[in-house]
Amino acid sequence: MPMDDMPKLFHDQSAKTGLSPGSLIHVGDRITERVRITILNYDDDRFDMREGVTPEDVVGCRNGDGVTWIQVRGLHQPEILEAIGGRYGLHLLMMEDILNTGQRPKTETFESCLFTVLKSFRDRENAVWGEQISIVLGKNFVISFQESDQDLFETVVRRLKNKMGRIRHMGSDYLAYSLMDTIVDHYFEVVDLMADEIERIEERLTANPETEILEAVYQLKREILYLRKHIFPMRDVTLRLEKGDSPLIRESSRFYLRDLYDHIIQITDTIETFRETATSLLELYHTSVSNRMNEVMKVLTIISTIFIPLSFLAGVYGMNFKYMPELEFRWSYGIFWFVILVAAGAMILYFRRKKWF
Amino acid sequence: MPMDDMPKLFHDQSAKTGLSPGSLIHVGDRITERVRITILNYDDDRFDMREGVTPEDVVGCRNGDGVTWIQVRGLHQPEILEAIGGRYGLHLLMMEDILNTGQRPKTETFESCLFTVLKSFRDRENAVWGEQISIVLGKNFVISFQESDQDLFETVVRRLKNKMGRIRHMGSDYLAYSLMDTIVDHYFEVVDLMADEIERIEERLTANPETEILEAVYQLKREILYLRKHIFPMRDVTLRLEKGDSPLIRESSRFYLRDLYDHIIQITDTIETFRETATSLLELYHTSVSNRMNEVMKVLTIISTIFIPLSFLAGVYGMNFKYMPELEFRWSYGIFWFVILVAAGAMILYFRRKKWF
Amino acid sequence: MPMDDMPKLFHDQSAKTGLSPGSLIHVGDRITERVRITILNYDDDRFDMREGVTPEDVVGCRNGDGVTWIQVRGLHQPEILEAIGGRYGLHLLMMEDILNTGQRPKTETFESCLFTVLKSFRDRENAVWGEQISIVLGKNFVISFQESDQDLFETVVRRLKNKMGRIRHMGSDYLAYSLMDTIVDHYFEVVDLMADEIERIEERLTANPETEILEAVYQLKREILYLRKHIFPMRDVTLRLEKGDSPLIRESSRFYLRDLYDHIIQITDTIETFRETATSLLELYHTSVSNRMNEVMKVLTIISTIFIPLSFLAGVYGMNFKYMPELEFRWSYGIFWFVILVAAGAMILYFRRKKWF
Amino acid sequence: MPMDDMPKLFHDQSAKTGLSPGSLIHVGDRITERVRITILNYDDDRFDMREGVTPEDVVGCRNGDGVTWIQVRGLHQPEILEAIGGRYGLHLLMMEDILNTGQRPKTETFESCLFTVLKSFRDRENAVWGEQISIVLGKNFVISFQESDQDLFETVVRRLKNKMGRIRHMGSDYLAYSLMDTIVDHYFEVVDLMADEIERIEERLTANPETEILEAVYQLKREILYLRKHIFPMRDVTLRLEKGDSPLIRESSRFYLRDLYDHIIQITDTIETFRETATSLLELYHTSVSNRMNEVMKVLTIISTIFIPLSFLAGVYGMNFKYMPELEFRWSYGIFWFVILVAAGAMILYFRRKKWF
Amino acid sequence: MPMDDMPKLFHDQSAKTGLSPGSLIHVGDRITERVRITILNYDDDRFDMREGVTPEDVVGCRNGDGVTWIQVRGLHQPEILEAIGGRYGLHLLMMEDILNTGQRPKTETFESCLFTVLKSFRDRENAVWGEQISIVLGKNFVISFQESDQDLFETVVRRLKNKMGRIRHMGSDYLAYSLMDTIVDHYFEVVDLMADEIERIEERLTANPETEILEAVYQLKREILYLRKHIFPMRDVTLRLEKGDSPLIRESSRFYLRDLYDHIIQITDTIETFRETATSLLELYHTSVSNRMNEVMKVLTIISTIFIPLSFLAGVYGMNFKYMPELEFRWSYGIFWFVILVAAGAMILYFRRKKWF
Repeated sequence: MPMDDMPKLFHDQSAKTGLSPGSLIHVGDRITERVRITILNYDDDRFDMREGVTPEDVVGCRNGDGVTWIQVRGLHQPEILEAIGGRYGLHLLMMEDILNTGQRPKTETFESCLFTVLKSFRDRENAVWGEQISIVLGKNFVISFQESDQDLFETVVRRLKNKMGRIRHMGSDYLAYSLMDTIVDHYFEVVDLMADEIERIEERLTANPETEILEAVYQLKREILYLRKHIFPMRDVTLRLEKGDSPLIRESSRFYLRDLYDHIIQITDTIETFRETATSLLELYHTSVSNRMNEVMKVLTIISTIFIPLSFLAGVYGMNFKYMPELEFRWSYGIFWFVILVAAGAMILYFRRKKWF
Repeated sequence: MPMDDMPKLFHDQSAKTGLSPGSLIHVGDRITERVRITILNYDDDRFDMREGVTPEDVVGCRNGDGVTWIQVRGLHQPEILEAIGGRYGLHLLMMEDILNTGQRPKTETFESCLFTVLKSFRDRENAVWGEQISIVLGKNFVISFQESDQDLFETVVRRLKNKMGRIRHMGSDYLAYSLMDTIVDHYFEVVDLMADEIERIEERLTANPETEILEAVYQLKREILYLRKHIFPMRDVTLRLEKGDSPLIRESSRFYLRDLYDHIIQITDTIETFRETATSLLELYHTSVSNRMNEVMKVLTIISTIFIPLSFLAGVYGMNFKYMPELEFRWSYGIFWFVILVAAGAMILYFRRKKWF
Repeated sequence: MPMDDMPKLFHDQSAKTGLSPGSLIHVGDRITERVRITILNYDDDRFDMREGVTPEDVVGCRNGDGVTWIQVRGLHQPEILEAIGGRYGLHLLMMEDILNTGQRPKTETFESCLFTVLKSFRDRENAVWGEQISIVLGKNFVISFQESDQDLFETVVRRLKNKMGRIRHMGSDYLAYSLMDTIVDHYFEVVDLMADEIERIEERLTANPETEILEAVYQLKREILYLRKHIFPMRDVTLRLEKGDSPLIRESSRFYLRDLYDHIIQITDTIETFRETATSLLELYHTSVSNRMNEVMKVLTIISTIFIPLSFLAGVYGMNFKYMPELEFRWSYGIFWFVILVAAGAMILYFRRKKWF
Repeated sequence: MPMDDMPKLFHDQSAKTGLSPGSLIHVGDRITERVRITILNYDDDRFDMREGVTPEDVVGCRNGDGVTWIQVRGLHQPEILEAIGGRYGLHLLMMEDILNTGQRPKTETFESCLFTVLKSFRDRENAVWGEQISIVLGKNFVISFQESDQDLFETVVRRLKNKMGRIRHMGSDYLAYSLMDTIVDHYFEVVDLMADEIERIEERLTANPETEILEAVYQLKREILYLRKHIFPMRDVTLRLEKGDSPLIRESSRFYLRDLYDHIIQITDTIETFRETATSLLELYHTSVSNRMNEVMKVLTIISTIFIPLSFLAGVYGMNFKYMPELEFRWSYGIFWFVILVAAGAMILYFRRKKWF
Repeated sequence: MPMDDMPKLFHDQSAKTGLSPGSLIHVGDRITERVRITILNYDDDRFDMREGVTPEDVVGCRNGDGVTWIQVRGLHQPEILEAIGGRYGLHLLMMEDILNTGQRPKTETFESCLFTVLKSFRDRENAVWGEQISIVLGKNFVISFQESDQDLFETVVRRLKNKMGRIRHMGSDYLAYSLMDTIVDHYFEVVDLMADEIERIEERLTANPETEILEAVYQLKREILYLRKHIFPMRDVTLRLEKGDSPLIRESSRFYLRDLYDHIIQITDTIETFRETATSLLELYHTSVSNRMNEVMKVLTIISTIFIPLSFLAGVYGMNFKYMPELEFRWSYGIFWFVILVAAGAMILYFRRKKWF
């Protein structure tokens, strides 16, 4: 099937994410150089895992009674996708969506499979790494695609291998749920990381409201909006999977999807709280800037108000009128200083009472 | 049933509630050290209450014709939950939600029971103590779980014991309603406490707009948002219980749930009013800050405007030009003071008329 | 039936309405001291009205073929409510809602009657008096409860007595509509009163933006919010009455309820306009404050900019250098003044052109 | 039928429209003094128009096979409405709505007719004149009521008379549509007028941000809100007419109503744009005011910063210390001026580089 | 069919788009002078394209088994539209909408065809050119109308000619989808252009917050609102095409329309992000303006605070009192300078510590 009907295949929007370099969140740039395919095959009794297989192996592999999970890491070799797509009858549009990494999270029902695209965000060395994950759920198979070579689903593989929990007894829908659940669990890490970042900014802000912190707050806001944009649609995705009438999702799995939905809601609630916090950080910045301004104005006013009248008095006795009786008087200069000090003291008292300093 | 399938069991989010230490609201930190179980069993004629029973007692207990209420205080011994869960056939996900205290209020229908999670907020010594309450409603039993050892449902127990009202004649659904109603009644106390706090801040604000009050307003806002986040979903919960078609809720109980819903609406309305009040408190702060700034500016302007021209005049007669006829004139100095005082008086009048002071 | 099952019966929230003392709106404080009961009985031909009857009379009264309207003024004797409730089979929760005067307007369908709670607001001597009205509509009776002793429904009684309009030919549903319609008609008075208040504040604001006016605007805003909170749910109430399928509301009455709904919409629209007006009054206040600030700043700048350079010049010729040729020159002093006046004039011209004054 | 059952008949809200005198929009004050009735009767072949008929003529007129259009101009003689209402069986509430000119646009289905109320806005001599139009659509008749004597539907009459387009072949529903379409067409004129006004204000604002312009912007905003309030409900009206299942609207007319709906949407979109523009005009005003303030502050700062230090220097050499070697030195005075000019020049350069002027 | 029934046919709203001259977006002003018609006819095996045909050709052309695409470029000759409309039975209202270029994007179902109006935006030489495209989809034909002579659908023609992809095998619905898809693809270019513009403004803003940039930001905001207004309704259009039950859209095409919908969502998301960015650019402008103001105030305050007290001291020793012992003292002048420098240094240190400079 020629690909010339796909003029928009590589709309790469990562350059337009609205995140500056130096941002906390990194999207799709730890891209793997080699595509790695792993095939797992299991049922209640059996577990078989072949790493580093070729596309031909995928095409040739026979699905037994159990569940087959084909894990594809790396997207830059479309011919591999074509081979797999041909073997499992994936729709052309689905394949376009898998390759085009600027997708919004969504789920779609095709004839023989359910297709879900979502974003994974993970905390790696205090930075958030994002990538697009596509999960194709068929009757007894799951195919997962990811951009990077990271071992995202390591815990799922371990639970399969060690027969932990119920995962080996249940079907492909539970496997797909487990993959999504793993991704959503990572969101919690990211949310924690953001919370730390917010706290750090808040501390700096109260200590010293400088312009760079304003930069940091704006950056933070952009990051929160970015996460929001990619995690909020997940509510819809999980809800549609749960409520949908696809026969691929068994009744027993719906409880788990409902649970997943609840987790997403918890995360989106937290992100909303972050958004409000970012807004009040901005307000706080402006408040502290205006407070400093007030302080500056008060200093100016105090100094001016004290010394301008005194200067006037000094100016008066610097005049050269011939007949200025005070000038001749013996104690004038002492009285002058006395008056000056009393006046200054009175004004200082006045400002004190007004709580200006 | 092994628990190794539950990697996210203890997602404790209490550290991320967004509330600072010193806040009015305290969440889940008066946790009990010992889990206490009480079994109540009653019907129209009979009332039997056993305190401090062991999990084995629960497992072994025979449910007669009446209603059985198992009240579990404390969550830190998951094995107790496992025992009870096994006895009453609770779903694994339900048990996870009971233990994970960061739940959003929700209600869910399982095969043989209705599961409801909500937050209790109570006023204890002028502080709000929050904890998560889980209520499992079965055909002729209710199981309630709470985090702390507090005697939240003391009034319900008393009404059961003393056969007050209709509670002894009615089924387990009325008991579950009574528990929720007790929790919602406590919300009113909390709302009153918040109202007092708001009034106190408002008074301080009008008396003296200092920066600490700004802190207090922000703290207040966070607390309001926190309450909002945990009480608003209750509308949904009660509505779903009322409108739901679960056979566990009898027709006669739906009126009561409707009433509960109305109470929640009243509370959420009040919380919304609080939110608007908090916003206008912030506005008020900014207004009074800017009013003070204006006052400072006016003082500066009045002083400068009066004395700068006068100083100029004094400066003129301090010049050393040889031919300055005024200097020689006998009454110059007196006239100088006369002019000065008239000019100053005129300016003061001008400012008075402009209502600058 | 013992009342000990009603722990929340007297949740009086009037103290927490958010309205300060001195407010335009007064809620429920002209409470009557004696409960007054009036029984009206009428059909096409007959009209019978007994005032000041006792609860026993109510219990004993036989409903003929016509419509019976029991008007209860005052709520503080729950035993009267109990007696009436027992006679007409009112649900316990309904009786709680009648007594608890902090209800949100709502309508509820019980087995044999329709229960509606709403707030009446009336203009009495340029102040708004609010109270809670409960209307129970049965097959051939209407029971109305109000907090105060005011003659709210005087026009309805007059129309009944004088056989004005169609009211005597129609059933109990039309009577209930007439009561609600009377209440809504009073809202128009209140809205007019608010409009006058807004106009008065607007005038004061443009005349002299002082801080007390800010207080007045905030008070106004609170009052608008208060009205909004209690009138907006009325849209829902009337809509549900009109669209509901209760057999107690005849087809012919639905047109009237639709009309009532339209009136409510008109009122809520006006209240929304008020809210926007209050917001722009606040904006206007801030604008005029900042305009005054600008004026102050301009005065300061003009005075400083004119006199500071001149003072410098005067200072120069006050220096004691031995060799300052200008000092010796005959016309120096005259030239000095000439320069001074020209410079001052030039600056004044400059400020004029800049439109600073 | 006595009207004493209609206590709220003349709720005239025009005094409370929120528009000040001198506003662009004028509502209902070109009220006609005489009620004028015109009866038009037409079918495919016949066209008959009688102007200035009496109510008796209306009552007596026989409806042939064609469509009858009764056009009533002026509302102040309720007895005429009563006569027509009696003849065509109009509901009492409908007649109230026709007379009460404070209606929100709405459409209502009565037994034998469809009743629509809307506001007409027209550009007459660069001012907007508004009035309430009521249209009653029956099986083969249309009755239109308007407040003023204006010839609003002149184009429709002309098209009828000259047999232009399809209007003569189609039924009463198309006539009603044509009337509404004419009204909506006039909205476009009004929108253009507003656009011109906005442009004019924008120009004045950028030229000279004075306080009167602020007044004008607020006035504009009120006018936009007023239009919005009366045109937005039209979306609902046209949608309900199109989607409604009234047999009075034929299938073939629904396309036209859909088209009308699209026009309303276009107009409401434009009004929304106006609202946003008005908001940004306000922002612009505040920005330019604050820019002027900055300019003032800069002038003050430049003058003060240059002359205050120089004045100090002059003050130093005005001191009377006995031993001040510089005073004796021959070139001191020249050097003083040199220093002064260099310092002033340096500061001017500094401010230039900072782009302060 | 006479057109005199279409009084509103040429409501040209382009003059009122709210975009100033010099804007990035240009709407409908590269209008072609000649109407150009191209007829394409194809099926699986055959491809036939006739350019520059006359309206008579269109009327006379026989539709074979394949798909006929009539591409009309230019709208200013309504008689051509009439001819085509008569041939294909287009509804009068549809023809009005095609000619009236101020339409909101919409889709409508007529008896025998689906009518869709949308706006095309394209990047041509770093400016956005917009025009209205109307697409009529019939059983085996598509008619497209555009305002200008641009070769918008060149890629579609090429794919048809070269038998690329599946387009030749599929029906008229796929062709209509392809046209819309091409238009939506161009939106991505426009969005990129806007992103560049935003970046450019952002850079200028941080470099130097001048008033012209404010102008640019407002212009940008208007452009974003303009795009938003014309692209947002596309969501509805594509959704209605996909979900609609028109038999003209085959089941197999719905996947593609869903895909189109996803692209629109991506674009509208980006536009929303732009809107938020524009708002924060405005905030940034105001922040940097207020920061500059603060800087100005600090300079004023520092200079005044240092020199005003020193001037006072100089003034004191300029007084002419007879008995001022300091004046006689040998080292007074030196001490005076020492005191002055120490005081000035101390104040500078103080300001440094306060981080004022």
